[in-house]
Amino acid sequence: MSPAEPAAPGSVRSGGRTARVRAAVLRAAGDQLAEHGFAALDLARVAAAAEVGKTTVYRRWRTPAGLITDLFIDMAEQSLPHADTGSLLGDLTANARLVTKTLTDPRQGKLFAAAIAAATCDDSAATALRHFFDTRLTEWSACVHAAVERGEAPAGTDPRAVLSAVSAPLYYRMLLSGDPLDDTAATMSAHAAVTAVSAGTFVRN
Amino acid sequence: MSPAEPAAPGSVRSGGRTARVRAAVLRAAGDQLAEHGFAALDLARVAAAAEVGKTTVYRRWRTPAGLITDLFIDMAEQSLPHADTGSLLGDLTANARLVTKTLTDPRQGKLFAAAIAAATCDDSAATALRHFFDTRLTEWSACVHAAVERGEAPAGTDPRAVLSAVSAPLYYRMLLSGDPLDDTAATMSAHAAVTAVSAGTFVRN
Repeated sequence: MSPAEPAAPGSVRSGGRTARVRAAVLRAAGDQLAEHGFAALDLARVAAAAEVGKTTVYRRWRTPAGLITDLFIDMAEQSLPHADTGSLLGDLTANARLVTKTLTDPRQGKLFAAAIAAATCDDSAATALRHFFDTRLTEWSACVHAAVERGEAPAGTDPRAVLSAVSAPLYYRMLLSGDPLDDTAATMSAHAAVTAVSAGTFVRN
Repeated sequence: MSPAEPAAPGSVRSGGRTARVRAAVLRAAGDQLAEHGFAALDLARVAAAAEVGKTTVYRRWRTPAGLITDLFIDMAEQSLPHADTGSLLGDLTANARLVTKTLTDPRQGKLFAAAIAAATCDDSAATALRHFFDTRLTEWSACVHAAVERGEAPAGTDPRAVLSAVSAPLYYRMLLSGDPLDDTAATMSAHAAVTAVSAGTFVRN
């Protein structure tokens, strides 16, 4: 599924002081997560880096997992809309390229790896990650629905299964095999998914 | 890619005291990893659980990452040979079912999740995991080579890309989406890969 694009450096959402504090804290948390991983995520260090009072951070986010949860809620809120290229192959290739771009981005790639690691041993981090992927899977499901309407995909095609098939091999390369995570991998995985869609592999029984 | 099957409980490789010590230590390390995750992996606790001298464990494995490294070397050594059902779909379905069985096994699933988490923040754990997946990708590549010889797959089909496409969606469900990891997911992912293979999607340029 497609992660969010990196927010523009130093971007600050409008909405007054609370929103500015949240933006600063989440950016500092994301930086620390990307740089040192979940194990080293420290609320006091985040507060210092964000130039926000320690008590504010402890009161509002409570734990490192609380920070990751809010970080991924924020990423889900900010994440990009699905592509609409007019063809399923075009849309799924755009999805695969976005995932590849995000996972190979020095900051975002490390951030996702750290969050995935956190999710394996912390339930609230896992819930936050699931929420993020749910949001993205739902957003991009529209591409599969459109393909069904265009007659490119059989009725009953499961959008989540299709989108998982597109991005899973890219995460697999980053996390497991270490095989190259490049445009060849992205286009291959979009092509494989589209071929299987046409064959009706992803139709729900 | 196909993880190893769980070793039989209490299984001990022959080969004298050194081998028995290694088996006991790796089993204790695997138990702790599965139960508490990488962050809690402690050499002294492993030594106690394995009923092996602390100094032996510190001398031979040095760090938690050293234990994970040897654990995955051992799993690669013990892992099952590839299937040989006579058809690519049969072989890839067997692979997908083995991955699913392993990832849904209470002990093995947690063990893989913990090792994947460790690999995101520890280079030697990452190297150990890559070595394990290399071994399994190489072992199961024979199924794709056989399919090329039988004319089921076009010449130049990349076995690693095919096998990654089969197991990646299963790891994705476990680590990211939380979608059901069941026989439907396994057969779907084998079918999708075979369809894409026939279409030449995985042929190296």
